[in-house]
Amino acid sequence: MTTTLPIGVFDSGLGGLTVLKELSKALPSENFVYLGDVARLPYGTKSTTVVQRYARSCYDFLLRHEVKLVVIACNTATAMALENLRAAGGPSVVGVIEAGARAGIKATRSGQVLVLATESTVRSDAYRKEFSRLAPELGVSQLACPLLVPLAEAGWFDHAITRDIIQTYLAEIDRSTYDAVVMGCTHYPLLEKSFRSVLGEEIPLVHSGAPLAEEVKTLLASRNLLSASSAPGQLAFYATDHVSRKLPIVTALFGDPIEFELVDL
Amino acid sequence: MTTTLPIGVFDSGLGGLTVLKELSKALPSENFVYLGDVARLPYGTKSTTVVQRYARSCYDFLLRHEVKLVVIACNTATAMALENLRAAGGPSVVGVIEAGARAGIKATRSGQVLVLATESTVRSDAYRKEFSRLAPELGVSQLACPLLVPLAEAGWFDHAITRDIIQTYLAEIDRSTYDAVVMGCTHYPLLEKSFRSVLGEEIPLVHSGAPLAEEVKTLLASRNLLSASSAPGQLAFYATDHVSRKLPIVTALFGDPIEFELVDL
Repeated sequence: MTTTLPIGVFDSGLGGLTVLKELSKALPSENFVYLGDVARLPYGTKSTTVVQRYARSCYDFLLRHEVKLVVIACNTATAMALENLRAAGGPSVVGVIEAGARAGIKATRSGQVLVLATESTVRSDAYRKEFSRLAPELGVSQLACPLLVPLAEAGWFDHAITRDIIQTYLAEIDRSTYDAVVMGCTHYPLLEKSFRSVLGEEIPLVHSGAPLAEEVKTLLASRNLLSASSAPGQLAFYATDHVSRKLPIVTALFGDPIEFELVDL
Repeated sequence: MTTTLPIGVFDSGLGGLTVLKELSKALPSENFVYLGDVARLPYGTKSTTVVQRYARSCYDFLLRHEVKLVVIACNTATAMALENLRAAGGPSVVGVIEAGARAGIKATRSGQVLVLATESTVRSDAYRKEFSRLAPELGVSQLACPLLVPLAEAGWFDHAITRDIIQTYLAEIDRSTYDAVVMGCTHYPLLEKSFRSVLGEEIPLVHSGAPLAEEVKTLLASRNLLSASSAPGQLAFYATDHVSRKLPIVTALFGDPIEFELVDL
């Protein structure tokens, strides 16, 4: 394997672009191949068997692009398919849940953390398992927020209705039971302003982005696979269905219109 | 073909159950096979090519159950795949858009109709084309309401936030430009109370349900395929992913828990 090979990143859709953005910021000389499985999104309401099948076809696509490492930039797919893909015997596979949990552990003072995620991620209990592996003394609450992905996809990032919906979800959990919030879905960082309006400015609101980038850097370094180039890396974008260049979620993250190449999985 | 064969009904998910309910009410002696393609929902944000591929695999599944007629209980799939499936040479295929347009034509007095639908249905312009075929003098406005399907799936049928979102969408269209509203998505009848709160009690709010049932009845009668049985028909439910028996959308429509048999398409 050579250091110039790209890093593969996949997600059920475009939420994983929040992860790609952090990765390319932390690893500016790396090349990346991003795949958004928008034809079959969302994963967050679907069963383990189905998500594992979809994740495997994304992984196989990235392998055909000779990636040196695969990042699952989707909490649901990480929760349901990380072990499967690791067992497939290809390049290293990194998910977003360990990094998200690490961010939560660093952020809490009281030892009580709230994880917001899709229904499937919550049902999988993957965050609770990861916290109990890394910091068994922590108290973890989880809350499924199924409408937040469609709101992010609709581009209602900082919107009265998004705030109302977040408020409605959070009303289910006693505010005194947590002092840090983990955004356990890669779409949620797009809604950060709405979260802030509801939660206030004080409480730590974290996600996997930065710690994940660190994890990837360390892993590549340990295998002598970090790019040695001094030139900026290239980003290539693929999707399983047509993606509009002017989609709010794309322009919010990358500014310039991005061309996604259509692939049929 | 014999009269005891079932009628096949498919949808991207469970919204089509609103159509099945109308059909089984109007045709109580008929047997039905329902398929919800929940593993790949929603169709309403996806491209024509992808929706045509998914619709074809649903249709092929129903044909393996020897159905005497296929109902596409999904506006997006009707808009994008009806012609394709009719060209496939199997049993008659009926979509929901003609019936929805007929309901709108019957309901309007001013000749100005508003159609609410998914992004893909609006983009396809299928309603406008159908209205101009059936009643070219009518004025038709269309409005994409992408968040309403997730709200119906979440079970927020009669909810303050659903009303706010409907209000937000409707604010884009001058109220004086229509005097009848067509619910151009089979999920929307579940949100009828929320629509009523926003629109008031006066304005006709119609959908394809009842006229579609009439269309199917007439078609079967013309081919001598109406069930001659006096016993109540059987309903069989299939889905491409796990469906919870207690899902709000299922219990709201059928009361009793329904068992969906899982199929892999």
